[in-house]
Amino acid sequence: MLPDFTFLIEVLGTVSFAMSGSFAAMQKRFDPFGVLIIAFVTSVGGGTVRDLLLDVPVFWMHDLLAVSLIFFTAIFTMIFKLIEKKFQVTLFIFDSLGLGLFTIIGVQKGLNADLHPVIGVVLGTITGCFGGIIRDILLNRIPLIFRKEIYATAAIAGGIVYILLKNFSGLSEEINQILTILLIVSIRTLAVKYHWQMPKFYGNFNDAEM
Amino acid sequence: MLPDFTFLIEVLGTVSFAMSGSFAAMQKRFDPFGVLIIAFVTSVGGGTVRDLLLDVPVFWMHDLLAVSLIFFTAIFTMIFKLIEKKFQVTLFIFDSLGLGLFTIIGVQKGLNADLHPVIGVVLGTITGCFGGIIRDILLNRIPLIFRKEIYATAAIAGGIVYILLKNFSGLSEEINQILTILLIVSIRTLAVKYHWQMPKFYGNFNDAEM
Amino acid sequence: MLPDFTFLIEVLGTVSFAMSGSFAAMQKRFDPFGVLIIAFVTSVGGGTVRDLLLDVPVFWMHDLLAVSLIFFTAIFTMIFKLIEKKFQVTLFIFDSLGLGLFTIIGVQKGLNADLHPVIGVVLGTITGCFGGIIRDILLNRIPLIFRKEIYATAAIAGGIVYILLKNFSGLSEEINQILTILLIVSIRTLAVKYHWQMPKFYGNFNDAEM
Repeated sequence: MLPDFTFLIEVLGTVSFAMSGSFAAMQKRFDPFGVLIIAFVTSVGGGTVRDLLLDVPVFWMHDLLAVSLIFFTAIFTMIFKLIEKKFQVTLFIFDSLGLGLFTIIGVQKGLNADLHPVIGVVLGTITGCFGGIIRDILLNRIPLIFRKEIYATAAIAGGIVYILLKNFSGLSEEINQILTILLIVSIRTLAVKYHWQMPKFYGNFNDAEM
Repeated sequence: MLPDFTFLIEVLGTVSFAMSGSFAAMQKRFDPFGVLIIAFVTSVGGGTVRDLLLDVPVFWMHDLLAVSLIFFTAIFTMIFKLIEKKFQVTLFIFDSLGLGLFTIIGVQKGLNADLHPVIGVVLGTITGCFGGIIRDILLNRIPLIFRKEIYATAAIAGGIVYILLKNFSGLSEEINQILTILLIVSIRTLAVKYHWQMPKFYGNFNDAEM
Repeated sequence: MLPDFTFLIEVLGTVSFAMSGSFAAMQKRFDPFGVLIIAFVTSVGGGTVRDLLLDVPVFWMHDLLAVSLIFFTAIFTMIFKLIEKKFQVTLFIFDSLGLGLFTIIGVQKGLNADLHPVIGVVLGTITGCFGGIIRDILLNRIPLIFRKEIYATAAIAGGIVYILLKNFSGLSEEINQILTILLIVSIRTLAVKYHWQMPKFYGNFNDAEM
């Protein structure tokens, strides 16, 4: 049952990040192929970097699942662009679900490769966050992750809790996954709802000569 | 004869992308080493990402051909900078040739690695377009591919036609390559000449909270 | 004794690039997790690209040394942010040391993989410079390497001299390393002190149609 469950949420994650990328590209007035490309890199970016770092086959290259999902999601998003306000909440939930799921998949793959749990959390954070970072680099803006509330923080917290549950809770893998994904989604939701922010630096800095 | 032919156009592609990168960096007033570095990443960027994704040796690391070609092209471009207007058309043709050739090489390498044809087209598009994307990221601007007429579209169309010809035409590999490269160059040329554009999105988008 | 020596300067390099990244992110008013992430990519970026290109295990994934060093350096830098003026010179020296050491490590690893010396110099330059490039891309600015005095130039010069010393000097490996690192640090220091710059291009360039 585990593969089916992971598979289901991986599909949801892929779809939600493809939507998030499509909306961002449409906001920047890209043409349909530009939207498709941004949807693609947002959705597969994190997992691609993860697989390159682990030196395993890159996940989207060996079947058509991810590419097809992204293609139809981008088309669907472009066709229904006019009613996107109705999607906004759904989209937010999907994006957070995607962050949660991709983070946990990244941590799992890291642990399966016998990496130290801390490195697993780093890898999970990269998997969850990197697609959005590449999206924002291509859109020529400072990545959202550095501008908005608690985003990487949610991924890091989720990754740590997942490893703690896995080692000490005695619960089943599915339950651990669901609890951790709910945690990440909850942190994100509460952070946006109540405008949680980490404190920022406001001191005077001089441009160092380097 | 196939390797020689592929080799010849690979050389032309490398040179043309190195020129394209050099001009872009000179427009931004970079110093000679900056020009050299931008020429290098523009020229090898797409193929490097392709080889990393395929997990095969990175093409420019095992002989001096690409590095030498790029070095001398960048030097040559810098020395003759004052007459670049005369180069503009040549440069455009070379850049389009480079796009065509690198795309086809990417598709070929994908098919040789037993990937699905659709993934082959994706890999070809990455190979043809990624160097220019990295160049524009380093120049801190929205990649040209998202701002200008039909660029990725030409690569995608060329990749699809190449695979169709290969499977159904009965023509030789060289003919297939030449026809597809001509197709990509023609699409690019006509798109620039007649200002073809894909329709863009002009609706009102609100910055989604994510 | 060689591993210890290389190890010592690798630690110094990691710490100095983590500091450099932390300061840059704090100047941009990032929150603590943003600072941590920028410190991380600045410090491991060059070596990660190097290891991916060489297709060897990525250095920071198999023990906690680099991640711990970066974590504590970033925390330390954030806590002591108010007295950073006192650190400026130290920081500059460390950043230059980091550039020197990481460049030489990159060249060494390239030569150990039986690459041509010229490719070794390219790989060393990538190792020394790429972390700072990724840092600046994430901060949405033109990479420092293209804006400031002699930076890549110092890495390239150091890489060439290292290979010449290794092949023709008869000196021990440690001495070669120390001399080359001193050379890179000296070039950087003199370039900053005396505002050395490579000549830039000031001609009129028209935006080419491509």
